[in-house]
Amino acid sequence: MSDIKKVVLAYSGGLDTSVIVKWLQETYNCEVVTFTADIGQGEEVEPARAKAEALGVKEIYIDDLREEFVRDYVFPMFRANAIYEGEYLLGTSIARPLIAKRMIEIANEVGADAISHGATGKGNDQIRFELGAYALKPGVAVIAPWREWDLTSRETLMAYCAERNIPVDFDSKKKKSPYSMDANLLHISYEGGLLEDPYAEAEEDMWRWSVSPEEAPNTATYLELDYQRGDIVAIDGKAMTPAEVLTYLNEVGGANGIGRLDIVENRYVGMKSRGCYETPGGTIMMRAHRAIESITLDREVAHLKDSIMPKYAELIYNGYWWSPERKMMQTMIDESQEFVNGRVRLKLYKGNVTVVGRKSENSLFDESIATFEDDAGAYDQKDAAGFIKLNALRLRIAANKGRNNL
Amino acid sequence: MSDIKKVVLAYSGGLDTSVIVKWLQETYNCEVVTFTADIGQGEEVEPARAKAEALGVKEIYIDDLREEFVRDYVFPMFRANAIYEGEYLLGTSIARPLIAKRMIEIANEVGADAISHGATGKGNDQIRFELGAYALKPGVAVIAPWREWDLTSRETLMAYCAERNIPVDFDSKKKKSPYSMDANLLHISYEGGLLEDPYAEAEEDMWRWSVSPEEAPNTATYLELDYQRGDIVAIDGKAMTPAEVLTYLNEVGGANGIGRLDIVENRYVGMKSRGCYETPGGTIMMRAHRAIESITLDREVAHLKDSIMPKYAELIYNGYWWSPERKMMQTMIDESQEFVNGRVRLKLYKGNVTVVGRKSENSLFDESIATFEDDAGAYDQKDAAGFIKLNALRLRIAANKGRNNL
Amino acid sequence: MSDIKKVVLAYSGGLDTSVIVKWLQETYNCEVVTFTADIGQGEEVEPARAKAEALGVKEIYIDDLREEFVRDYVFPMFRANAIYEGEYLLGTSIARPLIAKRMIEIANEVGADAISHGATGKGNDQIRFELGAYALKPGVAVIAPWREWDLTSRETLMAYCAERNIPVDFDSKKKKSPYSMDANLLHISYEGGLLEDPYAEAEEDMWRWSVSPEEAPNTATYLELDYQRGDIVAIDGKAMTPAEVLTYLNEVGGANGIGRLDIVENRYVGMKSRGCYETPGGTIMMRAHRAIESITLDREVAHLKDSIMPKYAELIYNGYWWSPERKMMQTMIDESQEFVNGRVRLKLYKGNVTVVGRKSENSLFDESIATFEDDAGAYDQKDAAGFIKLNALRLRIAANKGRNNL
Amino acid sequence: MSDIKKVVLAYSGGLDTSVIVKWLQETYNCEVVTFTADIGQGEEVEPARAKAEALGVKEIYIDDLREEFVRDYVFPMFRANAIYEGEYLLGTSIARPLIAKRMIEIANEVGADAISHGATGKGNDQIRFELGAYALKPGVAVIAPWREWDLTSRETLMAYCAERNIPVDFDSKKKKSPYSMDANLLHISYEGGLLEDPYAEAEEDMWRWSVSPEEAPNTATYLELDYQRGDIVAIDGKAMTPAEVLTYLNEVGGANGIGRLDIVENRYVGMKSRGCYETPGGTIMMRAHRAIESITLDREVAHLKDSIMPKYAELIYNGYWWSPERKMMQTMIDESQEFVNGRVRLKLYKGNVTVVGRKSENSLFDESIATFEDDAGAYDQKDAAGFIKLNALRLRIAANKGRNNL
Repeated sequence: MSDIKKVVLAYSGGLDTSVIVKWLQETYNCEVVTFTADIGQGEEVEPARAKAEALGVKEIYIDDLREEFVRDYVFPMFRANAIYEGEYLLGTSIARPLIAKRMIEIANEVGADAISHGATGKGNDQIRFELGAYALKPGVAVIAPWREWDLTSRETLMAYCAERNIPVDFDSKKKKSPYSMDANLLHISYEGGLLEDPYAEAEEDMWRWSVSPEEAPNTATYLELDYQRGDIVAIDGKAMTPAEVLTYLNEVGGANGIGRLDIVENRYVGMKSRGCYETPGGTIMMRAHRAIESITLDREVAHLKDSIMPKYAELIYNGYWWSPERKMMQTMIDESQEFVNGRVRLKLYKGNVTVVGRKSENSLFDESIATFEDDAGAYDQKDAAGFIKLNALRLRIAANKGRNNL
Repeated sequence: MSDIKKVVLAYSGGLDTSVIVKWLQETYNCEVVTFTADIGQGEEVEPARAKAEALGVKEIYIDDLREEFVRDYVFPMFRANAIYEGEYLLGTSIARPLIAKRMIEIANEVGADAISHGATGKGNDQIRFELGAYALKPGVAVIAPWREWDLTSRETLMAYCAERNIPVDFDSKKKKSPYSMDANLLHISYEGGLLEDPYAEAEEDMWRWSVSPEEAPNTATYLELDYQRGDIVAIDGKAMTPAEVLTYLNEVGGANGIGRLDIVENRYVGMKSRGCYETPGGTIMMRAHRAIESITLDREVAHLKDSIMPKYAELIYNGYWWSPERKMMQTMIDESQEFVNGRVRLKLYKGNVTVVGRKSENSLFDESIATFEDDAGAYDQKDAAGFIKLNALRLRIAANKGRNNL
Repeated sequence: MSDIKKVVLAYSGGLDTSVIVKWLQETYNCEVVTFTADIGQGEEVEPARAKAEALGVKEIYIDDLREEFVRDYVFPMFRANAIYEGEYLLGTSIARPLIAKRMIEIANEVGADAISHGATGKGNDQIRFELGAYALKPGVAVIAPWREWDLTSRETLMAYCAERNIPVDFDSKKKKSPYSMDANLLHISYEGGLLEDPYAEAEEDMWRWSVSPEEAPNTATYLELDYQRGDIVAIDGKAMTPAEVLTYLNEVGGANGIGRLDIVENRYVGMKSRGCYETPGGTIMMRAHRAIESITLDREVAHLKDSIMPKYAELIYNGYWWSPERKMMQTMIDESQEFVNGRVRLKLYKGNVTVVGRKSENSLFDESIATFEDDAGAYDQKDAAGFIKLNALRLRIAANKGRNNL
Repeated sequence: MSDIKKVVLAYSGGLDTSVIVKWLQETYNCEVVTFTADIGQGEEVEPARAKAEALGVKEIYIDDLREEFVRDYVFPMFRANAIYEGEYLLGTSIARPLIAKRMIEIANEVGADAISHGATGKGNDQIRFELGAYALKPGVAVIAPWREWDLTSRETLMAYCAERNIPVDFDSKKKKSPYSMDANLLHISYEGGLLEDPYAEAEEDMWRWSVSPEEAPNTATYLELDYQRGDIVAIDGKAMTPAEVLTYLNEVGGANGIGRLDIVENRYVGMKSRGCYETPGGTIMMRAHRAIESITLDREVAHLKDSIMPKYAELIYNGYWWSPERKMMQTMIDESQEFVNGRVRLKLYKGNVTVVGRKSENSLFDESIATFEDDAGAYDQKDAAGFIKLNALRLRIAANKGRNNL
């Protein structure tokens, strides 16, 4: 333990990571560099500076990463229509590789030989932080206090603080919640507490980012989203940056009761866990992106994307953003978005996101062929007979040989 | 054309297929056997008898296939969580193989050498009917009048009827709609008319099975669904047959504004087409089935199912129900459902289906491990360090050799 | 049929395509432009000029496409390790998109409105030519005489020639073989004749490009292949162009009895067919490419490539080279080859290709970790316990709940 | 460490596992039960009894598992045509789950609370043993001495033996090889020593089961293999049990220089390793099984099998035989083999396995359709035009909209 000279800590400014600052200093006798990022979690990050200083930290990094987060992580992921286990929009997962990357950049800048984080040994986040760190700086040491220390109950933690004069009101109000929460521009999540019984319905006052469908407005809101190469570039005709897009969609989505999710998911460490999520903007983006793709993507490209999507989502969930296989898949996904341009019109109403229109200069929807009316010879219906006959040939041969799929 | 002796026609009793009866008699100089099935389309099938008799048909089959349809087609498909192109619940697709099978059974009974249907040459249904027919009776002839005749406009069709005294009010009220529609217990679909512009919003009065979310009740409805081996066997504690389950879920779903969908999809014949669908019960079943699987399926089984699902859905969409590859995949899917037992609790409210609880005797959710509280040693957090280190090894070796995935 | 003004014909100079020239002129009353390419089939292409002229053809294209063929088609395909149905190296399939592309280029140059080819209506080649043509020039007409005419027996064909003074010795010696053959730089194929009985052993004198293993030299030949980004750039230290590489490997492979294959394959049109192939150079390249990848590719990249390979091979076999999905997959495959550099050492002996060594500046093989000897702490064996424990967690939970996978 | 009462050890009778007996007795103060299995490794297992007795072992299990091994593990795996990373026939991987299962059965019989094995912490075998053990007896303790002890060099091991009077000639002759070897009825493997340089050619005298192609007979050997449901049931007309089949094919294959392989593979623990393998019988079975499938499997079933095969092989390589996902895939694979019956004729010659014929009562090869001769109308070539036109439709629409895949 004496080998570590300097460690970069992902520091929220809350009680837990403040304790970690002290614990690292004492246990490893090393210098601690704190890193606090604004990734849209909805809390001020600047107060973390004074707290870190009070703990004797000399090198303090506080960054606004919101644009980078949405542009380089959220948007690329949504190009893939990534959903984990049919439901989860990967809100927590996608923020971790950015944090990992920035920690390593800082470690390189300040000459640190280790990184540390406040994730527990049961969850996915430790993996996402650490796989990223190892991939980007293979010799880095990783210190995960929750896997090492004995401050595993609230009581022992409080006693630790009392002995060292760490003010326990360091903790933000958010943490007073009975739930373990995580937030960024894409979502806020809830775990623990009453949710540990998967048959117990979540309490209404748990949710923080959205009104319930019941309390949402009684009239619908319409949105027009403009896409370029698979990314939203304007809303209702107004150009926006990536973070502006997501911020706006969170607001309007949350106000219309959109994006709540309650699931049991499979963690990479091997256990099932119950989580509740609010992803207002992401829920809107998912529906809208499929809609713009529906008129601009070739069928087989779309199907190929669908067939690899579960694998891609799993990679991100499991923490392999900074892997060559994710990068390789991203290349293919990005390639597919060349013509994903155009406009999607949506209706938001009490929890529902409904696609009501889509159009594009690059549309492959051909009215002259698809029409039920006279198509002036654009499509020869007789071709279908040959198409079916040859597609059936192998089935007919098999049936002739007595095979029966009934 | 003189070779056909007897043809089994999928007969709705509507104008189009009534014209086909006459056209087949005249064109092929053959006997026509009509087959009309109740698959839950919501119209009386018995009136088809008198209409067929009036057209000179001597062998008339009218079957109630609702239980078989849900038990042997809809339920197996939902075990796979099958969704085509991320959105479509395959409501039309799944009814066609049953019709094809029954047509062939009848053809064998009556000694027919051909089958016929009223699907056009531009759509998917011709393929689904015909692949099924060829697979089950490889020597059968298929007559698809819409690919052959010249009655391709409303005017020529009406003139044909006038000349032959076919009463044009044969047609049901449903067909008076400006849309091309199809219905069965799983869904009702709309195509054509205004929908041919994919940017035009569907009119409210097009929808027939569900109220709009706006008009749905202001208070939520809760449901408890009981599963055995992946199928719903009871609702709110009351045992039901498959068709009863779906009928009930359609009612309660439709009353709560659930299951409307508006998409552009890729047909197997190569064109894009815009379709609107109402699938109230299916939409509920999809969410609920994923929920019961979420606590009862092993993670890798669930992921494997997700990875093959797009292929499975494509097979059904394209008409390959009666293929060995569909059967082979079904074997695997059914095998996976052994422990998919238990109860899902749902909240329905103005278009939203929310899972609020799930429990099972076969649950793999282990509170003693997943808990944020003291787990009494059920899980050793230190294991995670080794887990991460070895998962990172290949990434670290690559980084040490200078590979950079940034 | 009167609409066609000018047609570009893929012209071999043999009897069949010479008849097609005449038949097109007569049947469509159109101008015929011939296109003959050297893609390494091992026959002179220049003699086709005089033959075409004798048939009254005014625009004659004769191109040497060997370098383009290997560089832009064969090499990209081998980057994917593409094998169809576990055995077939796609020798015929990969040449067709090049021919299709060149036909369309010529059609555009000469203002032709149609293309034509001599492939039959039962095979895959018609599909490969035509899908390519339609994808590159969507309004082009395609004339496939073998699907249209009645010259379906040798007798009728000969009578046709006699009536029109087409010299029947137009045909090359190759065609005197009882087999239907196709050749290009990647392979030569044999179908028909005795091979139509899949239990009949192919005759020794059918094979043309390779000696039998029995007749190959009694001493082994060693080769060293140098790779850059997945392609061979030098052999035994001598830099070579793509076509030179394949030409050389065909020679040395054929001389050592390498690359014969006898299979029953599934055609896209739905039937099974028996084919024999000689692919000496390709067989060597396949083994060698996997070997250089084995030390330079990340594990998950390699596995991802393996998982999509069957789909990629199927696309090429079925004729979808000029499709967006093939292009999309190619992007990913090419991306994976960035570090596939280095040298493979091979031993060729009487039909066997054995990899005996591989090395690379970009090798990920780390002797310091892999060694059975003391690794000086490069790998901590204790990490494996945690790795296994967490990978087993889901299995243990399931077993604790009574699930038994025995 | 004091908690372990009784441990079942996978005991080879060699020096390493003999040391483990002693080390377990001393370190854990527990009773050791030895288990030695004949899985066709080619050494007597009965001598292990006296050695175990000499070490004070009271409960000694010696089993002949050869038939079970081939019938329940090797044959099911070959039904899938499983190959890891394009080359490796999984010879070591497939034996481990059987050993794990038997260890757990014995543990249950003798009331043991732990199992132990002699696999190192760097390899795959520890994972395969332990995942199996945990899956079948979730509360079992696992002791892996190589991950725990300090006897990591030959010297310390010898000193340990000397102190405790363990006769060092316990070790069999096989272990005197400079290579780390593993053998069972499916294969023998070599690692370490000179092989740790992947560019160094393996020495001829390393190989033990096969002659070199150079030394193989100068005349070919023909074999006829009879299949039922995907398994070989007779050779040259003589019915054989599974173990007899593999024993015989190893003999005849080895005598003809068949089945040597030299690769660099990716281990589950994250490193690359170089291995050489002799798999004479397995190499023959792989070619032959594909051949019988080529005439009896439907095309799409075959392609589906190919598409999931890499995943299936990876599962077995990584040690997940006793997982629900492997069982689920096996169900599908076994289902596919219903009609895989018939005869394959093979030629073996100096390292080459050539399929020269295949036939079956269940053949889907239809000569009347596939023929180049007159097919009497069995196939209508005109159908191909429609087939191609509709398959091209999406490509033509895209090209018309200006998309260019060149």
